[in-house]
Amino acid sequence: MLYTSIENSKIKELKKLQTKKHRDLTNLFLVEGYKIVKEAYEQGILKEVYLLEGEHNNVPLEPNYISSKVLNFLATTKTPQPIIGVCKKLETKTLGNNILMLDNIQDPGNLGTIIRSAVAFNIDTIILSNDSVDVYNEKVIRSSMGMLFKINIIYASLKDIIQELRKENYTIIGTKVDGGKSLNTFSKPLKYVIIMGNEGNGVRKEILDLCEQYLYIPMNENCESLNVGVATSIIAYSLNMR
Amino acid sequence: MLYTSIENSKIKELKKLQTKKHRDLTNLFLVEGYKIVKEAYEQGILKEVYLLEGEHNNVPLEPNYISSKVLNFLATTKTPQPIIGVCKKLETKTLGNNILMLDNIQDPGNLGTIIRSAVAFNIDTIILSNDSVDVYNEKVIRSSMGMLFKINIIYASLKDIIQELRKENYTIIGTKVDGGKSLNTFSKPLKYVIIMGNEGNGVRKEILDLCEQYLYIPMNENCESLNVGVATSIIAYSLNMR
Repeated sequence: MLYTSIENSKIKELKKLQTKKHRDLTNLFLVEGYKIVKEAYEQGILKEVYLLEGEHNNVPLEPNYISSKVLNFLATTKTPQPIIGVCKKLETKTLGNNILMLDNIQDPGNLGTIIRSAVAFNIDTIILSNDSVDVYNEKVIRSSMGMLFKINIIYASLKDIIQELRKENYTIIGTKVDGGKSLNTFSKPLKYVIIMGNEGNGVRKEILDLCEQYLYIPMNENCESLNVGVATSIIAYSLNMR
Repeated sequence: MLYTSIENSKIKELKKLQTKKHRDLTNLFLVEGYKIVKEAYEQGILKEVYLLEGEHNNVPLEPNYISSKVLNFLATTKTPQPIIGVCKKLETKTLGNNILMLDNIQDPGNLGTIIRSAVAFNIDTIILSNDSVDVYNEKVIRSSMGMLFKINIIYASLKDIIQELRKENYTIIGTKVDGGKSLNTFSKPLKYVIIMGNEGNGVRKEILDLCEQYLYIPMNENCESLNVGVATSIIAYSLNMR
């Protein structure tokens, strides 16, 4: 099959996957480029491939062909690679002992960076508040460098899930710019949840109030705060070393 | 004085400060927003203030007034704050013991994040290779959150300056994705230079060849590499704790 028109109903359906609403409705999302299409295939979630006519396929799945006009219509980068994949959303796995919770993260680049560092430092699950940026947003997928498929990610009401996790003996740890224990001397609990906050405002007070311990990163007083991706990565690195 | 035309020669001169060439020629750069204008004043580098007519000034310097048309012409953000400052470039200070060297960093957001973390974790000087992004680029200034003024930053030929620094008894430490010593057990030298590489390619081989020690961040094998801002921040945090 070769698609050459952006008015084709199938192509219009694919285009809609650039919205969170449609991703949620269909349980599908798009990926762009050879590397991530291959990773999606290896993960068993790749459903369809759309390939620029004349280009090579790198996964053993019969491709649909598209014209360069259709490719540019579907792609979100200025100079796209010639392959687009349609994927099923990932299934939820077990929580594990090391949980990272993100309260209202908004920047897709920050979330991508956090996912990448979370995989690097053996976080088992990322729990995002329902009002956070969508993990299947194309900028998140791009900045996570394909690491999205290698970690368990769920959305939840943080208040509700914190109650559940406390019953399961997780230690709930809030982060603040100051106050609480220094990361440098912090003892890692066996099962923990580390909560990081929004770019501008940190963790919301009603969520901090549910925490049992607090943690800060010691730093020079000339610096008011760190980038949230950096702060999360430093904490994940440091806890992974203990 | 009130400027209402973007054809005015003074306003056209200011606009040119958005290019590296003109910043280098004049030794001046622009900053936007109340917070950073105030910090520039406190640092003693604020030369002129351009204020939207009718708005309040937050520094004791007679402002020039501008119309909203001129403000939007000079500002680089979509909804600018009503104040723009013209600053003299920072003067070089002494190097200190803790030096971070960046080989061909290209992304302004990454450099801004690195500057912020370098201040947080007591790096004294950042040395950038001559082909790196300009530190007075407005996106670097914005993402450094004003921390730019609180650290010594110089540009140099890395090969030449490494030779100089070796004579001054600095230990030159290259970073790699693997190989060398683990950050976790690394002993910090009294005077050191840590070299971080470009976003895609890491540190250039000819620079790595000049290093005496090598360092890597231990991580899960599922993750190929970290964001360069994150990697630099983790190393700076970790060395600062020793």
